[in-house]
Amino acid sequence: MKFICFGLLIAWTALAQETPTEREAAHDVLRHMSELEKAVDVPTIVERLTAANGARDQVVARAKELMDKELLGMADEITRHPEIGFEEYKSIEKLTTYLKQHGFEVTMGAGGLKTAFVAKYKRKDGPANPDSPKLGVILEYDALRGTTRPFHGDQHSAQGPVGMAAAIAIAETLERTHMPGSITVFGAPGEEMMPPNAKTDMYKAGVFNGMDILVRSHSSSATRRPAAGFGTCCLNIDGVKYIFSGAPSHQMTPWDGRNALEAVIHLFNNIDAVRSSIRPEARIQGIITEGGAAPNVVPDRAVADFYIRYPDEVYLAQVKEFVDNAARAAALATGTKLKIDNYGEDRDGISVSSLSEVAFAYMKKYGATKIAEAPGKPQGYEETGSVSSAIPGMGFSAASSNAPNHTYEMEADALTGVGHSGFQVDAQAMTALLYDFLSRADYRVKVRQEFDGIHKLFDEYRDSLHKVYVTPNVPDPK
Amino acid sequence: MKFICFGLLIAWTALAQETPTEREAAHDVLRHMSELEKAVDVPTIVERLTAANGARDQVVARAKELMDKELLGMADEITRHPEIGFEEYKSIEKLTTYLKQHGFEVTMGAGGLKTAFVAKYKRKDGPANPDSPKLGVILEYDALRGTTRPFHGDQHSAQGPVGMAAAIAIAETLERTHMPGSITVFGAPGEEMMPPNAKTDMYKAGVFNGMDILVRSHSSSATRRPAAGFGTCCLNIDGVKYIFSGAPSHQMTPWDGRNALEAVIHLFNNIDAVRSSIRPEARIQGIITEGGAAPNVVPDRAVADFYIRYPDEVYLAQVKEFVDNAARAAALATGTKLKIDNYGEDRDGISVSSLSEVAFAYMKKYGATKIAEAPGKPQGYEETGSVSSAIPGMGFSAASSNAPNHTYEMEADALTGVGHSGFQVDAQAMTALLYDFLSRADYRVKVRQEFDGIHKLFDEYRDSLHKVYVTPNVPDPK
Amino acid sequence: MKFICFGLLIAWTALAQETPTEREAAHDVLRHMSELEKAVDVPTIVERLTAANGARDQVVARAKELMDKELLGMADEITRHPEIGFEEYKSIEKLTTYLKQHGFEVTMGAGGLKTAFVAKYKRKDGPANPDSPKLGVILEYDALRGTTRPFHGDQHSAQGPVGMAAAIAIAETLERTHMPGSITVFGAPGEEMMPPNAKTDMYKAGVFNGMDILVRSHSSSATRRPAAGFGTCCLNIDGVKYIFSGAPSHQMTPWDGRNALEAVIHLFNNIDAVRSSIRPEARIQGIITEGGAAPNVVPDRAVADFYIRYPDEVYLAQVKEFVDNAARAAALATGTKLKIDNYGEDRDGISVSSLSEVAFAYMKKYGATKIAEAPGKPQGYEETGSVSSAIPGMGFSAASSNAPNHTYEMEADALTGVGHSGFQVDAQAMTALLYDFLSRADYRVKVRQEFDGIHKLFDEYRDSLHKVYVTPNVPDPK
Amino acid sequence: MKFICFGLLIAWTALAQETPTEREAAHDVLRHMSELEKAVDVPTIVERLTAANGARDQVVARAKELMDKELLGMADEITRHPEIGFEEYKSIEKLTTYLKQHGFEVTMGAGGLKTAFVAKYKRKDGPANPDSPKLGVILEYDALRGTTRPFHGDQHSAQGPVGMAAAIAIAETLERTHMPGSITVFGAPGEEMMPPNAKTDMYKAGVFNGMDILVRSHSSSATRRPAAGFGTCCLNIDGVKYIFSGAPSHQMTPWDGRNALEAVIHLFNNIDAVRSSIRPEARIQGIITEGGAAPNVVPDRAVADFYIRYPDEVYLAQVKEFVDNAARAAALATGTKLKIDNYGEDRDGISVSSLSEVAFAYMKKYGATKIAEAPGKPQGYEETGSVSSAIPGMGFSAASSNAPNHTYEMEADALTGVGHSGFQVDAQAMTALLYDFLSRADYRVKVRQEFDGIHKLFDEYRDSLHKVYVTPNVPDPK
Repeated sequence: MKFICFGLLIAWTALAQETPTEREAAHDVLRHMSELEKAVDVPTIVERLTAANGARDQVVARAKELMDKELLGMADEITRHPEIGFEEYKSIEKLTTYLKQHGFEVTMGAGGLKTAFVAKYKRKDGPANPDSPKLGVILEYDALRGTTRPFHGDQHSAQGPVGMAAAIAIAETLERTHMPGSITVFGAPGEEMMPPNAKTDMYKAGVFNGMDILVRSHSSSATRRPAAGFGTCCLNIDGVKYIFSGAPSHQMTPWDGRNALEAVIHLFNNIDAVRSSIRPEARIQGIITEGGAAPNVVPDRAVADFYIRYPDEVYLAQVKEFVDNAARAAALATGTKLKIDNYGEDRDGISVSSLSEVAFAYMKKYGATKIAEAPGKPQGYEETGSVSSAIPGMGFSAASSNAPNHTYEMEADALTGVGHSGFQVDAQAMTALLYDFLSRADYRVKVRQEFDGIHKLFDEYRDSLHKVYVTPNVPDPK
Repeated sequence: MKFICFGLLIAWTALAQETPTEREAAHDVLRHMSELEKAVDVPTIVERLTAANGARDQVVARAKELMDKELLGMADEITRHPEIGFEEYKSIEKLTTYLKQHGFEVTMGAGGLKTAFVAKYKRKDGPANPDSPKLGVILEYDALRGTTRPFHGDQHSAQGPVGMAAAIAIAETLERTHMPGSITVFGAPGEEMMPPNAKTDMYKAGVFNGMDILVRSHSSSATRRPAAGFGTCCLNIDGVKYIFSGAPSHQMTPWDGRNALEAVIHLFNNIDAVRSSIRPEARIQGIITEGGAAPNVVPDRAVADFYIRYPDEVYLAQVKEFVDNAARAAALATGTKLKIDNYGEDRDGISVSSLSEVAFAYMKKYGATKIAEAPGKPQGYEETGSVSSAIPGMGFSAASSNAPNHTYEMEADALTGVGHSGFQVDAQAMTALLYDFLSRADYRVKVRQEFDGIHKLFDEYRDSLHKVYVTPNVPDPK
Repeated sequence: MKFICFGLLIAWTALAQETPTEREAAHDVLRHMSELEKAVDVPTIVERLTAANGARDQVVARAKELMDKELLGMADEITRHPEIGFEEYKSIEKLTTYLKQHGFEVTMGAGGLKTAFVAKYKRKDGPANPDSPKLGVILEYDALRGTTRPFHGDQHSAQGPVGMAAAIAIAETLERTHMPGSITVFGAPGEEMMPPNAKTDMYKAGVFNGMDILVRSHSSSATRRPAAGFGTCCLNIDGVKYIFSGAPSHQMTPWDGRNALEAVIHLFNNIDAVRSSIRPEARIQGIITEGGAAPNVVPDRAVADFYIRYPDEVYLAQVKEFVDNAARAAALATGTKLKIDNYGEDRDGISVSSLSEVAFAYMKKYGATKIAEAPGKPQGYEETGSVSSAIPGMGFSAASSNAPNHTYEMEADALTGVGHSGFQVDAQAMTALLYDFLSRADYRVKVRQEFDGIHKLFDEYRDSLHKVYVTPNVPDPK
Repeated sequence: MKFICFGLLIAWTALAQETPTEREAAHDVLRHMSELEKAVDVPTIVERLTAANGARDQVVARAKELMDKELLGMADEITRHPEIGFEEYKSIEKLTTYLKQHGFEVTMGAGGLKTAFVAKYKRKDGPANPDSPKLGVILEYDALRGTTRPFHGDQHSAQGPVGMAAAIAIAETLERTHMPGSITVFGAPGEEMMPPNAKTDMYKAGVFNGMDILVRSHSSSATRRPAAGFGTCCLNIDGVKYIFSGAPSHQMTPWDGRNALEAVIHLFNNIDAVRSSIRPEARIQGIITEGGAAPNVVPDRAVADFYIRYPDEVYLAQVKEFVDNAARAAALATGTKLKIDNYGEDRDGISVSSLSEVAFAYMKKYGATKIAEAPGKPQGYEETGSVSSAIPGMGFSAASSNAPNHTYEMEADALTGVGHSGFQVDAQAMTALLYDFLSRADYRVKVRQEFDGIHKLFDEYRDSLHKVYVTPNVPDPK
């Protein structure tokens, strides 16, 4: 999750619609969602898949073995050598070496990012049929920037080992059984940092093209899964830099210059001016990253960095326009020039019950603790929404710490029993689900049906939102 | 003068150029001015005109007689019944009645203003040759808005009587001597108020078309005259209203509205933001004349009224653009709409020594007191500059009070000896100068030569200013 | 209701707690409330009271007769001659004359307000025993300020007649039956305007002292009653004027002055600065009522008028402190002086089911239409909360219009069948409830028990809120 | 000079009084100054001192020899290895080694500054009589911060060698002639940087205690000297940091935090708000040096750095109070806490003609070029005013470059003939003046008389300023 926690405790209901207006707009959509879920009949799926299955148990046991023998140790190693986003050189060295040792072909620099990679399993029995199921596992490995040192307070250190255990167990199964299918591992850097928004850049570069399913694990203080639908943990976000240029001049003759810092200050003022004209669920906050060089020179460059958030992306676009106009107005008023750098965005992802409920059942089966019985807010399996709204998938989060995310305590837990047992649960549940998806064509059909249905309802929801968010009519002044 | 005095004491030098940049730009212009003044040779003119002249003395004596018998009394009457600008109905009734009684044809509503008028003397010996000299006298009659009552603290009450004394004495002379020429009286309301800017409106409507000279009197605490040149007492001024419209909404749901008051507030903020980017001689000040109707409704209309001042009109245009952009930026940032109402402007007028030095000599000859020996700052004979930069003329201001302008004491003085004797001086000196202008073709040529020369230098000065006021280069942000 | 409606449509649930924090704080209180309601057992009360009762029917019939014969006509008269708040001279002339004709002693100027009055019924059989039940009826009569004319778009015009019908019917019953008790009518002006906050002023002056019950009627587009509890329709409100004084100066030398308008502008800016530091349910909005006199004089006085709202009064106090500090900071920064005029406040009132459910049953019994079956949000029977949180009572609002409040259509409906039948329902239901309260000691005990219980829970709720609204710790800068 | 030049071209007259108000206040002071100068009779002093004098010529020749043989080469060395302020370790290594080699005792860390030092010449004939003349030479050596590298664009690289040549020549003379007296060299770091304000810190630590005269050289594009009086090149300056602390919180719940960046922004706004209430000669400009860490966390620390300037220190104190109040108001309005760090100030210094005219005559005598004949604006011999307003002294600035200060061209000139010949002139003129001061008791008396006279007039001037800068009366609001 992409924020520093200050004990933020918001009790999410399973509803992604957070405002009365959204709930009004979602009225029909929610009814159709309910019909869709009835048609997919997830309880029956769960029952069938989680029943006794020796073949599955064998694959899962191999994943467990890899964890026990080598990968929990590797997780500890990475935990002990934290590297912040886009600088995870040593961590990916460990991961890619291991993957190569297990028959994966590694390509570095995916999506133009130095510490991103793609590792494709190279079947010795020849390339997979292009129509056969394509499975993908996303790994993350960046540490948090602490005030004194980088630290693995979000346990990304374990995601590589967990995902590799599942991927290698599946790869070996493909080889052994000659089942049609392929398995690919995606190394995604800098989850905690934006810009760049790594997964979005990778997605736009076509890195995930053709995948039928993507899975990922993530640390948690409880064992959870999302409800079916679309949503995101912490509002839709636009990350934007507003860069102003002016003209320098000595403090003694400021009229020969144009003050870029005044422009940035009035960007903030202009935003404050319309806070009461923007729906109260918005969160707009910025910092000043460049605020002038010396007090005796008119600042000719100044930069502000903003996160703009709203529960849905439709009204978010209106909020963004308010903020962009605030910046344009600041430039106009101060005689400076403006560049708007839209460096990143996080959007609603899609969660499907046919994956999340099976995953949840497997997590419980393999010994997950601290179970949150009610499904959580719908949301994608990765934080940007760009991948998780386009490709079905599941994020596994068995309880792996007694502390909240983004704490030094959670880092410590990664090295002890509470962490290790959570990682083991994730590795086994992930393997089981991937095996089911690989081996059962009817299950793949159901997942696709649910995903496509929610995808369509998401479009309908956005259409409805466009209708409820009318802008007021402003007449010409007389 | 168009402002409420707060004991403002600025020692004007004879220089209209008030900033180092202006003085730099005026370097050549001032040299040419000096050459022009040498060529016109005003001291010789003064000497010749003010020499003994029985014909002139007869006309002047008649003006004095009118003052003594009737017009000082009328001045007292108007002083005792003050009427503020554009409501001077009783005052103009007195003035126009008297003018009609003395052979003038009165047309009301000059320039579209209810209390403005034009009174043309109708020669009984037939209309004047169109090429003969056309003399004009401007009258004013509006009182000041005091905190408790209107009052004649600027003695405009005496301008009608003084100007009429001169105009009637000249009219009778035209009749008696059959000299070619005409005399017209212009009643100009609301000198103390803007908008509308009465003389500018009258000028633009062509009311003063064809005049060869215009004269006016005005109260003063000293007997003064301006140096030759161009200038104004109190900076060039743009009067502007910024009118914003938004959309109303209840306070409970302000996002359904757009707040026009926030736009006005940010107009002020945006101006404040660039104060340090504007040369320090500028004076920009506004008030909020409409600031919302009720605190529980989003204000959908708000209005600010500004005076924008700078020593010269060239940089003033840049300042105005800053302020207009401040308003446009406020509208852009708040989602409101803007109307810019440029309701008035005051500009540099022209003063010519061939008129002002003769007038000064006559004022002294007829007994003016409290003489300021050094010529004052160049400036036109009326406050807007629109007329006084286009037509040669002279404002007479013999000392008529012991108190500063815009005081209750100056009103009181209008009713006593100090006022009466000043008004008598103005009436006689005005009559003498008009008689000289009417009767001496060579004098008219000299006045025209000087006026045209200064007019041309004024153009050159503005051209130079355009060169010194370069705007800084602002590169695109990177 | 004290606001101009812009189609405000908020679907209130019966919950007065509007934020997650409030709901958290109210957890125990709501549980105790539920226990209290169970103990009072309102359904049984309703059943008993609304059963057949000839004595009650006689009194109610008398109220209906008064309405039919005279008072509906008087309502029409007042509707046709609308008078805005604190200027309702003709309206109260009609009302007080009628009251005097029916044995009431009228005292004008209650609470220091010219158009407020108290009319005490003077029993001919001697004064009531001081321990006997004291019944009160509140009348209102002010019209709305429309953009073109005053109008009775909230139908206050009918409140006088409705309340008088009930009061007179009860008074005649007291006389006739010699039952112990008294009846008093309170004329309360300017409901739509603040300041002054009429009912609060009257309450503080002790006008309502000793009352055991107070009733009022009000127009509505549906027949409604509130749930038991405490609350208000539209948040708790503080009405405040911020008055700044500076020092005047001419625009040419502004440094000799201090600009009070800049202070007001920075009051707004300072509020905008902390909008994101204030919980999003707050509503803070102001207008500028005095914004300077002339653009060429530094404004030495400026005034802003604010409504500050929050769902509960405990956090409202923190919001108020933010706004007061914004004003103090504006004065400090601009060198001006500040006066804070806290001119009015609206607070949660108390509603008791033992009154509202009986009233609701009677409204239905007497033919009310457009029934809202679910109880509405808890709230007092008058808008300020000052009276309705201190004395038990009930506001009757049978459907009396097809249009929303504050519309010209609702005014028109006051003159036709839809209005008249609604007023008749209110008059009869009010009479019935007053009769029951007067005649049944056990009912009075129950009402008191419920009111005192809720009053105590309200105190507990505020105590809990004080605990949840902690202010952040701000360390000293290093 | 302590600012980055942008082609700033202000033609200073010899008048330190820059505003009409200052000139008004200085009226009597300037008259007394003129009387003082007449009494000191500088022309006669110059004539006597610069007459033929073999003893002086010998000392001067020695200084020249040191320059030619070693010190011009050392200047080149330092020029080629520029070190920015407070990091001039290698530069002072060269200087102090050379001083030690010539009999000076060096103490490092003067005034608590690592790269400051004091080098006292240790007479071999025993310590100087405490009443004998105490001569001091100030050296500087810091380079400018260029955009790409440190550079000696202000030629401080030559000040050490120049000053050492003079100091050593004098030291050897003391030794040789047994004249009473002492010579001390002061190494002052970081002239171009504040904070810390090095010379002020050294002065306050008593480093310069007891000195009778202080001299310094500085590069220049012309040979200049100041008129007698008090003043500074570029207004009196206060350097201040405003440090705000708030409380952090996640962007999702900003009401749990307090935003320190909003406080900084409103500091700027509050200053802008009063710009029109502050005399237009003020220059107030700031930058934001810390503006928040991440856009999703409420900034809990933010810092702004300001230079506040005014022509005189009396009104500067009023301006400073405006800015401090702006900061206090920002803290009050945002609920943050404020620390005001007054890290430095530059003030008027004193210049005496009895030193500057003698120095000027010597510079011409020893071959200075590009002579500015008219005396410049009065100002001290060092930039802070703290030393130069307390101890008589002289800054030598023979033309040493064809380029303006603070340019790469001036750095290049330091290595060629134009630089070298200017440095030679400074070294010789400085030596000559020090020798005269050392050897002529009557000269020392005259210098002291003039300095004390100006010091007293400076006090009188400040007293007069206190009288003219009255603050407006602000009445309580009603």
